[in-house]
Amino acid sequence: MKNTFGNALTVTLFGESHGPAVGAVLDGLAPGIPVDEKYIAEKLSLRRPYGKISTARREADAFELLSGVYNGKTTGTPLCILIPNADTKSADYEALRDIPRPGHADFTAQTKFHGFQDPRGGGHFSARQTAALVAAGAVVQTALEEKGILIGTHIFRCAGIPDRGFMDPEADIRTLCGRPFPVLDEEAGGKMRLMIEQAAAEGDSVGGVLETMVIGFPSGCGEPWFDSLEGMLSHMLFSVPAVKGVEFGDGFAFADLKGSAANDAFCLDAGQVKTATNRNGGINGGISNGMPILFRCAVKPTPSISKPQKTLDLKAGELTVLRISGRHDPCVVHRARAVVDAVTALVLADVLTGRFGTDYLGGI
Amino acid sequence: MKNTFGNALTVTLFGESHGPAVGAVLDGLAPGIPVDEKYIAEKLSLRRPYGKISTARREADAFELLSGVYNGKTTGTPLCILIPNADTKSADYEALRDIPRPGHADFTAQTKFHGFQDPRGGGHFSARQTAALVAAGAVVQTALEEKGILIGTHIFRCAGIPDRGFMDPEADIRTLCGRPFPVLDEEAGGKMRLMIEQAAAEGDSVGGVLETMVIGFPSGCGEPWFDSLEGMLSHMLFSVPAVKGVEFGDGFAFADLKGSAANDAFCLDAGQVKTATNRNGGINGGISNGMPILFRCAVKPTPSISKPQKTLDLKAGELTVLRISGRHDPCVVHRARAVVDAVTALVLADVLTGRFGTDYLGGI
Amino acid sequence: MKNTFGNALTVTLFGESHGPAVGAVLDGLAPGIPVDEKYIAEKLSLRRPYGKISTARREADAFELLSGVYNGKTTGTPLCILIPNADTKSADYEALRDIPRPGHADFTAQTKFHGFQDPRGGGHFSARQTAALVAAGAVVQTALEEKGILIGTHIFRCAGIPDRGFMDPEADIRTLCGRPFPVLDEEAGGKMRLMIEQAAAEGDSVGGVLETMVIGFPSGCGEPWFDSLEGMLSHMLFSVPAVKGVEFGDGFAFADLKGSAANDAFCLDAGQVKTATNRNGGINGGISNGMPILFRCAVKPTPSISKPQKTLDLKAGELTVLRISGRHDPCVVHRARAVVDAVTALVLADVLTGRFGTDYLGGI
Amino acid sequence: MKNTFGNALTVTLFGESHGPAVGAVLDGLAPGIPVDEKYIAEKLSLRRPYGKISTARREADAFELLSGVYNGKTTGTPLCILIPNADTKSADYEALRDIPRPGHADFTAQTKFHGFQDPRGGGHFSARQTAALVAAGAVVQTALEEKGILIGTHIFRCAGIPDRGFMDPEADIRTLCGRPFPVLDEEAGGKMRLMIEQAAAEGDSVGGVLETMVIGFPSGCGEPWFDSLEGMLSHMLFSVPAVKGVEFGDGFAFADLKGSAANDAFCLDAGQVKTATNRNGGINGGISNGMPILFRCAVKPTPSISKPQKTLDLKAGELTVLRISGRHDPCVVHRARAVVDAVTALVLADVLTGRFGTDYLGGI
Repeated sequence: MKNTFGNALTVTLFGESHGPAVGAVLDGLAPGIPVDEKYIAEKLSLRRPYGKISTARREADAFELLSGVYNGKTTGTPLCILIPNADTKSADYEALRDIPRPGHADFTAQTKFHGFQDPRGGGHFSARQTAALVAAGAVVQTALEEKGILIGTHIFRCAGIPDRGFMDPEADIRTLCGRPFPVLDEEAGGKMRLMIEQAAAEGDSVGGVLETMVIGFPSGCGEPWFDSLEGMLSHMLFSVPAVKGVEFGDGFAFADLKGSAANDAFCLDAGQVKTATNRNGGINGGISNGMPILFRCAVKPTPSISKPQKTLDLKAGELTVLRISGRHDPCVVHRARAVVDAVTALVLADVLTGRFGTDYLGGI
Repeated sequence: MKNTFGNALTVTLFGESHGPAVGAVLDGLAPGIPVDEKYIAEKLSLRRPYGKISTARREADAFELLSGVYNGKTTGTPLCILIPNADTKSADYEALRDIPRPGHADFTAQTKFHGFQDPRGGGHFSARQTAALVAAGAVVQTALEEKGILIGTHIFRCAGIPDRGFMDPEADIRTLCGRPFPVLDEEAGGKMRLMIEQAAAEGDSVGGVLETMVIGFPSGCGEPWFDSLEGMLSHMLFSVPAVKGVEFGDGFAFADLKGSAANDAFCLDAGQVKTATNRNGGINGGISNGMPILFRCAVKPTPSISKPQKTLDLKAGELTVLRISGRHDPCVVHRARAVVDAVTALVLADVLTGRFGTDYLGGI
Repeated sequence: MKNTFGNALTVTLFGESHGPAVGAVLDGLAPGIPVDEKYIAEKLSLRRPYGKISTARREADAFELLSGVYNGKTTGTPLCILIPNADTKSADYEALRDIPRPGHADFTAQTKFHGFQDPRGGGHFSARQTAALVAAGAVVQTALEEKGILIGTHIFRCAGIPDRGFMDPEADIRTLCGRPFPVLDEEAGGKMRLMIEQAAAEGDSVGGVLETMVIGFPSGCGEPWFDSLEGMLSHMLFSVPAVKGVEFGDGFAFADLKGSAANDAFCLDAGQVKTATNRNGGINGGISNGMPILFRCAVKPTPSISKPQKTLDLKAGELTVLRISGRHDPCVVHRARAVVDAVTALVLADVLTGRFGTDYLGGI
Repeated sequence: MKNTFGNALTVTLFGESHGPAVGAVLDGLAPGIPVDEKYIAEKLSLRRPYGKISTARREADAFELLSGVYNGKTTGTPLCILIPNADTKSADYEALRDIPRPGHADFTAQTKFHGFQDPRGGGHFSARQTAALVAAGAVVQTALEEKGILIGTHIFRCAGIPDRGFMDPEADIRTLCGRPFPVLDEEAGGKMRLMIEQAAAEGDSVGGVLETMVIGFPSGCGEPWFDSLEGMLSHMLFSVPAVKGVEFGDGFAFADLKGSAANDAFCLDAGQVKTATNRNGGINGGISNGMPILFRCAVKPTPSISKPQKTLDLKAGELTVLRISGRHDPCVVHRARAVVDAVTALVLADVLTGRFGTDYLGGI
């Protein structure tokens, strides 16, 4: 369904980087969910460029709620969030239409849309579109939090520097929510930022891995086959620009484990069924088992770099060298965090709405 | 949509391991695709238990085409494939209803279906269901091959032993199609099988990584946001039992690259736009760029092991030790290959049908 | 989605009239719904040819439940119903491939499927396919009845003879369930059958109107816009072969009413909000208001008649006269009743599953 | 899918009558469709209140294209149309929350949304939402017209006065496009308007029937079962507020025909396969046969009337008498025409996009 995702609760995206606005429509929301504009703004601020390690483009991310909210609560009808664009410098991009940037979607957009696409700032492919996703995610995160479901993402690794892992899930998640550069170990974070600045100085960029934990999600949600929790989550996570890998629980490390080490033994914890380990990331057979949901996303280094790159002049039909000036991020891992949290919230809210009905997330 | 996946071309699954049959319905197929029952049988044979390293359960996998085929070609109406079950030993499983097997879906099935699920042999969660997927995939693989689109999957790593990578894509893919134990380096394959046998002897199991390459897929197919090629493929790949990670191109290795190393420079090859490297796995911005599509799946070790395991007796509400007897696979990596090929074919056929219309794959 | 319909609860159809079988897959069923094979057989018997006024083709309609049922109850996983074909006389149809029958889908099938369709007995277009729909509907009707939701359809008019309208909804619906020729006024029914026999004797056929009432359906279900109850119901009702019109409440008669006569005044009945009249057929703004849901379907006369008809010989490219021999129904209105009941049940069960979650219809 | 409809080409609606705006997102549009704002404005003007026979609420219907358009053509990415609200008098409605208007969705909205709905002006149920549908429809109508597909709707009957039927389809359709009060016989139109004014003077309202013809639509489009052309069209047509009946071709009149009269004989017309009559409205077995598509919609009289009406005070739990003041339409039949044209265009464009691929409507 292209720009609409979800079964019971859907999100629809629209917009281009340098057009009038980007936006999202949420449909299937329960009525009665509190909509706190300050909370949405906070989530948007976590996606915004950060200090010296981000693009110089400064977006206010002022948003408007065009529908679906009345007296501060969701109505149960479609909620449209609009984020008008500002501070766009379209002149930066016009020349690039025939000279596709390596690692970007310029060439594939041209092939798919036959030149009718809006090339300015990446058009509809722009990560600008994720501002709408983050705002949409914030609306459902409020509802999830009222059910005791918390989502937290940290930089598992960036530019070769590892963060420490989750230890006290709830405390760690609350810590991350307050940090624009989301690490659990501030010292590791400092080293990462140094490496990012150094890459920026070289006209280069770095990548990393994000790790997400969800606590409080009830067991028995998800589907055995196509709409497994892993399937639904990965579908959306791969929509986050630059994500090229997704793994649940031990993920690729499972490949080198034996079954006796990989299986999570069941146990009782204060009368509750738990597992002694959580190598499966809270999901068995596509369905939540009540343990924390845990997954990681690989984020590739930003393809926009100022170092000269070999590419083609499609019109001339010959090789050329491209130097991207403009304003770019030497790293998007920390900014992608807000998007990962948002799409996770959207998927989980969809699954819960299908499982427990259309009133559930409104607390009715 | 639970057990139905796809937009223009959908597959719907049904069946339980020890019920009368498993099956699949393909809808949205072009009319006129040749249906070769021998070819389907060959693909099913690649999924079948293999030598000493597989379960002793021997399934004939005899299939019936109940609809959608007339005079040896698809009609354009739904094609139902039925695979009757045989050689089922239900007695093996009845005792396990209250004693969930670690790493399996027994507990989550119980939580979701409140005890109404069919527990015999894993019921609807059983990998037996993948026989229907493989048969369905075989139908569309014929159509893809007529378009010059070839899919091949090898064991990238198993039990710690690596295979060599793809070198000559077309030749390698053709080689893999003929090998029930799909490796490119037969010597590495021999070592893997030894390790699997050793694990089996210990009552244990091993995991691995599968790597898939698709050649001949046209550029300009896929979507910028939710229905990106990565999103659609991963959604289905995570439906393959035991898959816990999916990565495209360099995947998680991107995390430690710089942008200057990660970007694929564009170049010309006999007048065609290509990229000098293929670190992005043939996909930019969710859309195919004409290079080979490349991805890897992490396959966890089979959770059914005969070693004693700690678990719960849910009825008694106390810890117990489980010894699984029955017939089980010490490794499913090689058998999962056929399923990965099948779901890849199903997703790509869906994307092409949406892109070029409902007659395209029939060659009309 | 072609042969799959529904949001939370879907039905997928497959099969051809003279192929091995027709069938349906129900997905999204709650676990725990009792599956009574006798009840399904009863519903199928209401669709079967009836006495002198139906085709001489006699189908046993033996069905098999291939999946999704365990210990007499739904498991919550896909339920596949298979109805093998028998008593097929394919020779009757082969000649008709190039000589399309007026009023049938022969010509449009040829145009859409380019000659690859199965022409025998109408192939996938055959009303034979509705046997699978009726069986699928019966499964969810059981669940609806346990919630106090009853569905009844009578022949509102046939061959110009009117039946009386609903008077005592519950008693009338129960009466209809036991009558293979579904009229409320048996005398009117007798006259209808005479007219049908007379048309048959003339080598002709007759049409009619079916009227359906649903009682016990809760208020507040349905959607304001595209998935209004009217939209969802009509979508499925127009899938019933020969249905060419659908109207809710006063329907087309609204055109000649004034607002003051058309509006249903609200009132209280034993503390319950009701309306004094029910001209809107239980639906306002696409959503149920708690009053009986009421609609009518126009059923065209069977296009298969033995009278000579003008048509084309497509191969020769010239006019010809067609005489259909074979075995045909001079009227399908009474048989269509079972299909209308079934698709109504499927739509309402889908709406309830979405509204109240996936356990609701299992009574969990 | 609630507020999203379509398979290959979808439309998503959002907005409330007295909120900031109503709008629609079109997704799946081909790239390269010319977007003519004047043409969209013209279509919107056909929906606008007309002379003395409409509400006094005057809306400018100024619209903004927020995305999906670049250099005057569609880009192939989602197109969002926004229509800001103006001239709203919310005070008119606040009192009505607990006193539901008969024939309206006030009560069902309350039941479904538990009081969280926006009650002002009908909120999301308001016909105001159809302005967005009309604008969305206009975008695809341009593409259809470039393919020679023309859509025209006239008032078949209003307040008991009949219009003449279609005679010269193309000329008649072109005539209708230019008439804000869409009749083929201007004299009949004059009589209708007199009857409407008379009803208005009495504080009452009238209903009617709309008849739609589509010419130039290719044969072989549509599906045998659930996504039949009738099923898809009716699904959307019942979303048009006040529509309570839909019939194709002879529709309910089929009930009293014999098969020999109802069947459309095939014939040749300048080498083209045609039918001598068109009683099936251009559709056989759910698929277009190349003849004009013909259907009619029953439109109920506007429920908002100034005559006193019996209803309930839900809070007090007692009967009361309601006098609606505000500004209302004594008839919406003529205004509904633009909406019927729009949803018809949206459905047909969706069907064509699925059939011929995502470039087709862009003429690529």
